[in-house]
Amino acid sequence: MFQAKLRSDILKGIVDVVSTLIDEAKFKISDNGIQLKAVDPAHVAMIDLTLSKDAFEQYSAAETDLGLDLEKLKEVIRLSKSGDIIEMRQDEERGRLVLMVGNVTRRMNLVSTEGMSDPKVPNLTLPARITVTVDELQRGIKAAESISDHVALNANTEGFEMVSDGDTDSVSLKLPKALLVDLQCSESIRSLFPMDYFSTIIKAIPSGTNVSINLGNDLPVRLDFDIAGGKGSVRYLLAPRIEND
Amino acid sequence: MFQAKLRSDILKGIVDVVSTLIDEAKFKISDNGIQLKAVDPAHVAMIDLTLSKDAFEQYSAAETDLGLDLEKLKEVIRLSKSGDIIEMRQDEERGRLVLMVGNVTRRMNLVSTEGMSDPKVPNLTLPARITVTVDELQRGIKAAESISDHVALNANTEGFEMVSDGDTDSVSLKLPKALLVDLQCSESIRSLFPMDYFSTIIKAIPSGTNVSINLGNDLPVRLDFDIAGGKGSVRYLLAPRIEND
Amino acid sequence: MFQAKLRSDILKGIVDVVSTLIDEAKFKISDNGIQLKAVDPAHVAMIDLTLSKDAFEQYSAAETDLGLDLEKLKEVIRLSKSGDIIEMRQDEERGRLVLMVGNVTRRMNLVSTEGMSDPKVPNLTLPARITVTVDELQRGIKAAESISDHVALNANTEGFEMVSDGDTDSVSLKLPKALLVDLQCSESIRSLFPMDYFSTIIKAIPSGTNVSINLGNDLPVRLDFDIAGGKGSVRYLLAPRIEND
Repeated sequence: MFQAKLRSDILKGIVDVVSTLIDEAKFKISDNGIQLKAVDPAHVAMIDLTLSKDAFEQYSAAETDLGLDLEKLKEVIRLSKSGDIIEMRQDEERGRLVLMVGNVTRRMNLVSTEGMSDPKVPNLTLPARITVTVDELQRGIKAAESISDHVALNANTEGFEMVSDGDTDSVSLKLPKALLVDLQCSESIRSLFPMDYFSTIIKAIPSGTNVSINLGNDLPVRLDFDIAGGKGSVRYLLAPRIEND
Repeated sequence: MFQAKLRSDILKGIVDVVSTLIDEAKFKISDNGIQLKAVDPAHVAMIDLTLSKDAFEQYSAAETDLGLDLEKLKEVIRLSKSGDIIEMRQDEERGRLVLMVGNVTRRMNLVSTEGMSDPKVPNLTLPARITVTVDELQRGIKAAESISDHVALNANTEGFEMVSDGDTDSVSLKLPKALLVDLQCSESIRSLFPMDYFSTIIKAIPSGTNVSINLGNDLPVRLDFDIAGGKGSVRYLLAPRIEND
Repeated sequence: MFQAKLRSDILKGIVDVVSTLIDEAKFKISDNGIQLKAVDPAHVAMIDLTLSKDAFEQYSAAETDLGLDLEKLKEVIRLSKSGDIIEMRQDEERGRLVLMVGNVTRRMNLVSTEGMSDPKVPNLTLPARITVTVDELQRGIKAAESISDHVALNANTEGFEMVSDGDTDSVSLKLPKALLVDLQCSESIRSLFPMDYFSTIIKAIPSGTNVSINLGNDLPVRLDFDIAGGKGSVRYLLAPRIEND
């Protein structure tokens, strides 16, 4: 059983982030809220998203899984303005989710969640933690993405640097400690990541969000950020690209 | 003979609506104003448009037919802002229409009206009449057009509903009597129409316009609406798609 | 040696104009400023651009040539807002130009200037000179460019006219003396030019710029206009298309 009302911009934030990895998602519904874990088909990145029932205008649910086509959710979101309320109701008999925006009702078939695994999110110890507004990262990504197909994330006690090195050109975004929200780093750290994954997730995070970048030498990066004004959170893990020099 | 000045947004409104059906149009000019009747090549829809000479800033004409390429008219309209005046003058000697916007003069060859028939608009008795602002319909169309290639228009004594039923999903726009401008309906009515025609005409009608939807069971729908602040009017007829269930 | 700071909108103005003719450009740097001369590959048009060191927020240079890929400069400009400062520094050791916008640093390889000639700008005597805001010309070009692949520029003692004559349609932009900034013309002048070159340069000139059109019968046209608020200037020469009637 699932029946809820949610602000359209909160639903949009979730769908934008999750659809960077997958087309169809399994939303695990409980009486406390919603959880979603997913890996992309190439097993390069993983997402672990939690949204408390407090993020909803109204929420009433018993434990259930909802398999949803994210492209169809985007169609419904596009019918609404940022502050609008989207009403959702599971139609258990017909295996459908019913969504209402204003006077429009969209009934969508649920997708089967049978093939969808519940990925186990690894518990990594990552020595460095850089917190920064996503807007800074977005500017750096915009500058770097035409340069190379990978991006290096570097941190030391002085600050954070994002570097993209191509054959003829290079781009770096350098953020000294003073421009960061927070810096926890006691040594020099460097890891290399695939540009397409990193740029896609950075661009999907809403402007103004503080992102914590958790780094270790040649370890996965974990991005932590809040959604729904702190009533939900996302952990995003991305595997490193090992350098051979 | 034809010489006139018209506000650019009024001309745009006419061309947007008529070009949903045809590329070239025969404008019948008289000393009272302009009339235009057209069917699309597949004979699925028909338009009957009237614009009084009172809609013009200046109007002087004797009976004549003008065959015009609507795409070329759009090019001229794009040179103007909404409040701008477009000046038009028939050059009978050369078979051209001369249009002036600001300091720019466009001379365009008339197209032959010989092949263009004068369709007879059928006089239908349609028992239901729903009047609604086009913006409500546009929201419903936006939600429905990816779902199915047809759309059902339903009315009863309680209100109006637009339903699009696809293989896995469905969309409905439900407008109870209180959300309608007017409702004349004493029984349950339902007709099915091709989505592409219906969505194209609904999207071509300027925001804020009141549209009257005239319906009968499995009969054509007739949309009536004013243009040019009531100094002109459009009747648009669309053939039903007969259901076999 | 070259090290400078320049407002992003000034750099954009230069790159927009020069990239109408070429993809890679040789910037001749001296202690007084920058000069650039270029012809397009088909030798139909020529540009001669000068930017004084006074246009820069900071300027320090010794004589050198910089070969730059204009598309890459556009990428850097897109990272900035109109008032932002772009910092540039030649890295002579590595043959690179280093550009800084905010916290982003872009290092780009210089391109070889060996194949790039220094075109000699011919000294033409052109009897007519029409000065007009580029916005008027842009409106005329927008109306005319779908009509024909050439455009006639006409002037006489009364004013200026731009005419494009197609098979079925024609467009003219007529600017009487009162709508011009200045008119120096004592006889009837007419020349025909290729539409694509003329429309591309006119659209690349920033709105609000006064352009002087220097004309002679069947002679090249020379467009003169200021950049960087008068601290730089452009001369653009375009070969006529000789009419055979």
